[in-house]
Amino acid sequence: MTIFHGWAAAEAKQPLTPFRWEPSPLGPDDVEIAVSHCGICHSDLHLIDNGWNISTYPFVPGHEIVGRVTEVGGAVAHLAVGQRVGVGWQRSACLTCELCLTGNDNLCARQTATCVGHHGGFAGRIRTDGRYAFAIPDDLDGAAAAPLLCGGATVYAPLRRFGVDATSSVGVIGIGGLGHIAILMLRAFGCEVTAFSSSPAKRDEALAMGAHHFVPSTEPRELHRHGGRFHLLLSTVHARLDWITYLKTLRPNGTLCLLGLPPGVLQIPAGSLFQGQKSITASEIGDRATVAEMLRFAARHRIAPIIERAPLAQVNEAIARVRRNEARYRMVLDVAE
Amino acid sequence: MTIFHGWAAAEAKQPLTPFRWEPSPLGPDDVEIAVSHCGICHSDLHLIDNGWNISTYPFVPGHEIVGRVTEVGGAVAHLAVGQRVGVGWQRSACLTCELCLTGNDNLCARQTATCVGHHGGFAGRIRTDGRYAFAIPDDLDGAAAAPLLCGGATVYAPLRRFGVDATSSVGVIGIGGLGHIAILMLRAFGCEVTAFSSSPAKRDEALAMGAHHFVPSTEPRELHRHGGRFHLLLSTVHARLDWITYLKTLRPNGTLCLLGLPPGVLQIPAGSLFQGQKSITASEIGDRATVAEMLRFAARHRIAPIIERAPLAQVNEAIARVRRNEARYRMVLDVAE
Repeated sequence: MTIFHGWAAAEAKQPLTPFRWEPSPLGPDDVEIAVSHCGICHSDLHLIDNGWNISTYPFVPGHEIVGRVTEVGGAVAHLAVGQRVGVGWQRSACLTCELCLTGNDNLCARQTATCVGHHGGFAGRIRTDGRYAFAIPDDLDGAAAAPLLCGGATVYAPLRRFGVDATSSVGVIGIGGLGHIAILMLRAFGCEVTAFSSSPAKRDEALAMGAHHFVPSTEPRELHRHGGRFHLLLSTVHARLDWITYLKTLRPNGTLCLLGLPPGVLQIPAGSLFQGQKSITASEIGDRATVAEMLRFAARHRIAPIIERAPLAQVNEAIARVRRNEARYRMVLDVAE
Repeated sequence: MTIFHGWAAAEAKQPLTPFRWEPSPLGPDDVEIAVSHCGICHSDLHLIDNGWNISTYPFVPGHEIVGRVTEVGGAVAHLAVGQRVGVGWQRSACLTCELCLTGNDNLCARQTATCVGHHGGFAGRIRTDGRYAFAIPDDLDGAAAAPLLCGGATVYAPLRRFGVDATSSVGVIGIGGLGHIAILMLRAFGCEVTAFSSSPAKRDEALAMGAHHFVPSTEPRELHRHGGRFHLLLSTVHARLDWITYLKTLRPNGTLCLLGLPPGVLQIPAGSLFQGQKSITASEIGDRATVAEMLRFAARHRIAPIIERAPLAQVNEAIARVRRNEARYRMVLDVAE
């Protein structure tokens, strides 16, 4: 009998403890992966806490997974045993609806998630839908690649959707797991990059990552100095912000794109949208073609998320650092079987 | 001495009375126009009432103007005396800023408006910047063309911005001056058209204009039946609506575009944007290239706004009908010198 080993929360908000289970049989489209690295995303913490009321327990988190294929189902033609692959938030989609057929499978109504209703990547092995396992280019370091699978995809998709290029001026709100990857990618696109952070201590690091400007976002006067500047503003934070002022930092026809979900209700005077025909929208991970393109883009531009590493056995300490917002800038677990 | 005759409000919220004035000298880029028709837009009523605190009195409204050129300034090369032209909301722009140079002159920060700080089209003649006077194609009736200059441009610009075509499903909220033109234009584009109105009595007329579906917007259950339907939703009303439900009627990646300014603050749970990556934006009139294209489009597709006509001498009665929302669907003044 095959037994998988991982770390699970026995119930909501509990520390993770070692957990073993018998995996589901490998389906024809599935792959089995020996996990080598798994990033810790804020969504994992929400799921541990049952913050979205969709968690089931015992709950094994983890959806920024890198590893090697150890077994493939009978219908898997694009991956081979031994190949290095990555798996992100999305586990599957129907692949038959209009959204899937038009390359918008990240919006499929029947999609499933890697660690919702399935055991995630804080584990030695996973079995998952091979159609959502992506080849990792050789030039990418395995540990640094892990955060690309969810955080990187989430940041990259809107850059493509809004046609960011070397003439664009882009602002990034929040310099954490997602925000720091955004700076790295935007520099690779040749953009003018402005970082907004409530931690003035991150100034030097943000500039070292490639940001041209750093704005301490707790000082409204500083925000106002950037009026009419940005084609695109990416908000990576989950906090309620001064949206009216941020909308003023957009150029005419500019877009504020939310990647983090603020609590409560956005309060937007319609006039802030009319002045300069500005838009507010949101973005959710990325479709398969975009994730695959992003991985090749990251390899070619040598984009390596800045990570802290911890062995899987120290997962609770690692989670605690993420909860305290101390990780610089993404925590990645090293998994050794 | 040249004297112009028109109708003006002596102060805010007053009826219009006959008014005469000596026009400014004709500048090199200006044209003088003998007005034949002028539409009554809701913005005229706001300006009469000084609702935006930008009106000066005596105030001559009117910015949906059709007439014939009677004189051209020395620098005017594209228009000739005797030619039929139209003038809309925008009177001028700097024509040198980045927005102007990229064909976004409707967003120019230094733009001026036809009847703000200048006497508008409820008059026998106007002098205005010829660069914002548009040739009216011969196939367009003069009276029916008047509402195209502001209302038509406002509706047409977002159809082009969002790439509406014969595969699009578009909803129009509010079937009045703008909304009814939207239905006519959307049918010409070959779209599937859904009309939302709080007046169930408009059902038959909306369907006769070409709407495929009519939804009484006062019945939430009816709105919910159209979940996930629209690529684009145009709101032409100035009222506070159930935005959350309207966002649900959008397809994934769909856009809610405001053409009318709702009072107060939009209350949008960020989650309604995340589910399907939906966008909210607004649109303001149209740039010069788009207005000129729209007039040719309207001529070729025989788009004639449905109007009620009144002589300029009955302007106060006409305004009263517009204030009571009784005009079907746009009131146009006939001006005879």
